[in-house]
Amino acid sequence: MAVYTEVTDEALAAFLAEYDIGSMVAFRGIAEGVENSNFSLRTTSGDYILTLYEKRVDPEELPWFLGLMEHLAKRGIVCPLPVQGRDGIALRHLCGRNAAITTFLPGVWPRRVRPEHCAPVGAALASLHVAGQDYAPTRQNALGPGGWTPLLERSRSRADEVQDGLAEELERSLNGILATWPRDLPIGHIHADLFPDNVFFLDGRLSGLIDFYFAATDILAYDVAVCLNAWCFESDFSFNVTKARAMLRAYDATRALSDAERAALPVLCRGAAIRFLLTRLFDWLNTPAGALVTRKDPLEYWRRLRFHLAARDEHAYGI
Amino acid sequence: MAVYTEVTDEALAAFLAEYDIGSMVAFRGIAEGVENSNFSLRTTSGDYILTLYEKRVDPEELPWFLGLMEHLAKRGIVCPLPVQGRDGIALRHLCGRNAAITTFLPGVWPRRVRPEHCAPVGAALASLHVAGQDYAPTRQNALGPGGWTPLLERSRSRADEVQDGLAEELERSLNGILATWPRDLPIGHIHADLFPDNVFFLDGRLSGLIDFYFAATDILAYDVAVCLNAWCFESDFSFNVTKARAMLRAYDATRALSDAERAALPVLCRGAAIRFLLTRLFDWLNTPAGALVTRKDPLEYWRRLRFHLAARDEHAYGI
Repeated sequence: MAVYTEVTDEALAAFLAEYDIGSMVAFRGIAEGVENSNFSLRTTSGDYILTLYEKRVDPEELPWFLGLMEHLAKRGIVCPLPVQGRDGIALRHLCGRNAAITTFLPGVWPRRVRPEHCAPVGAALASLHVAGQDYAPTRQNALGPGGWTPLLERSRSRADEVQDGLAEELERSLNGILATWPRDLPIGHIHADLFPDNVFFLDGRLSGLIDFYFAATDILAYDVAVCLNAWCFESDFSFNVTKARAMLRAYDATRALSDAERAALPVLCRGAAIRFLLTRLFDWLNTPAGALVTRKDPLEYWRRLRFHLAARDEHAYGI
Repeated sequence: MAVYTEVTDEALAAFLAEYDIGSMVAFRGIAEGVENSNFSLRTTSGDYILTLYEKRVDPEELPWFLGLMEHLAKRGIVCPLPVQGRDGIALRHLCGRNAAITTFLPGVWPRRVRPEHCAPVGAALASLHVAGQDYAPTRQNALGPGGWTPLLERSRSRADEVQDGLAEELERSLNGILATWPRDLPIGHIHADLFPDNVFFLDGRLSGLIDFYFAATDILAYDVAVCLNAWCFESDFSFNVTKARAMLRAYDATRALSDAERAALPVLCRGAAIRFLLTRLFDWLNTPAGALVTRKDPLEYWRRLRFHLAARDEHAYGI
């Protein structure tokens, strides 16, 4: 869940007066998202999401994220559109935090992924990549391959508390991944966190993509690898090749994957698995008692990583 | 926050088909409430709250709670109205839980209580007490005075972890409260938990009362004492007699307090303070690491209790 900062009604009323979106009708904290405080806001003009940016988001990067969302929304991607104040500025201040109001997207995220979800996700991801091509500013991916070794260093001494021998196995796997990490694949703006809880569906159609606060400029096909990890494993960690094929075919139909991108899928998937494994491992070892956030088991990604380590080529993913 | 149970979109769609309220448009977990899982639900016919009842609520008591809400709502109290399925039944099953849909109430709960909130709360509490008079079923207050000694027993051996000597002081205070607990005061249905996060305001007016799952049949003036504790202390635990006077006068204007009720206010307030102190103390000592619920400091109620122990008569509360 995520409400780290409480907003008084007076502060909210004063904040809304900076906009041209009417007055407050309802305001509830949303039990979703991890990094920021999110509120469902209804005004006399409609529904919105109010986000207060908490400490894990670098304030200097917020204009990049909001600019990307605005760019994508204007090109038809169903993502939150930042709402500007009367002065034309979307990034504002509330209760000592950076804050923004964005449009509300209808739909429900799939708690259980079915095969029919995967083609729309693949198509939406490809559309996002294409629509982002002419957004000029870039953002380095702090959680990309350059960040994985320092991330492992931070958990290394305690990794074996989670599983015996994990530190050594992670180091060996990571070295292998970094040694074979592809160069010269197409770069662009990636979502980098397109998990099921960031994708809404309504009446069987994809109705929204949310939470762009891990977005960055990186290998486009790496974003596909993140989605293969996030959408195509069953709860017993078996890989559902039907889901993967549906996702990859739909992606390919909107933005054709090159031979080099296809060939790189196994190592990109290994990289994506170890990226989530490493952040979960760190959070697992460092989440204090009584924290508001549920810890996620890092070993779920160890299981995924093992699948990808055994994948000989792109055929393992159904193509 | 409170989303303990996840609801798949298929399960939700099947559940909604049991009602005549249209199809799903949006569905988000709400980061409020402690006992149950709450979701904001929008359908093609409007906005609702879906509640899944978790283990702390006795299933056999749910019809009483829902019946009370329906009774009150039909008498003009702005509280959630349980929505019936096509078969006329409001209490249903979803994802292995008892579940109910209720109407959505607009408004925002006051994160910071101002004096002008207190008269509407007093008036609404009195209206609730009057409107409940002809709801015939009763519910014993499990967290009333009969429950306090067993509650202390459950925390007694570890109470001094929170504050040195707390166990002994609590026992002495509790014995004094129980020895002087009033008899023969008017009984009725009480909310028993009317804290600021259970009261919505909109445009300066009280727009909703929610969360009736601690409601019970008990001394009406005890409910007033709960509200004096919940609304009239400042964050430094000083008692704001202006707030108390506004609340009590507004209550009295709708349902006149008898001399006996007024005279009992100090002991009723002590009882209300120790009731919240005891449940918070138990939760404080028993909330596991990584829990979804923020622990509330039991000593906040120790500070309130000390004020009430020093109150010589009802004049301490501004009347």
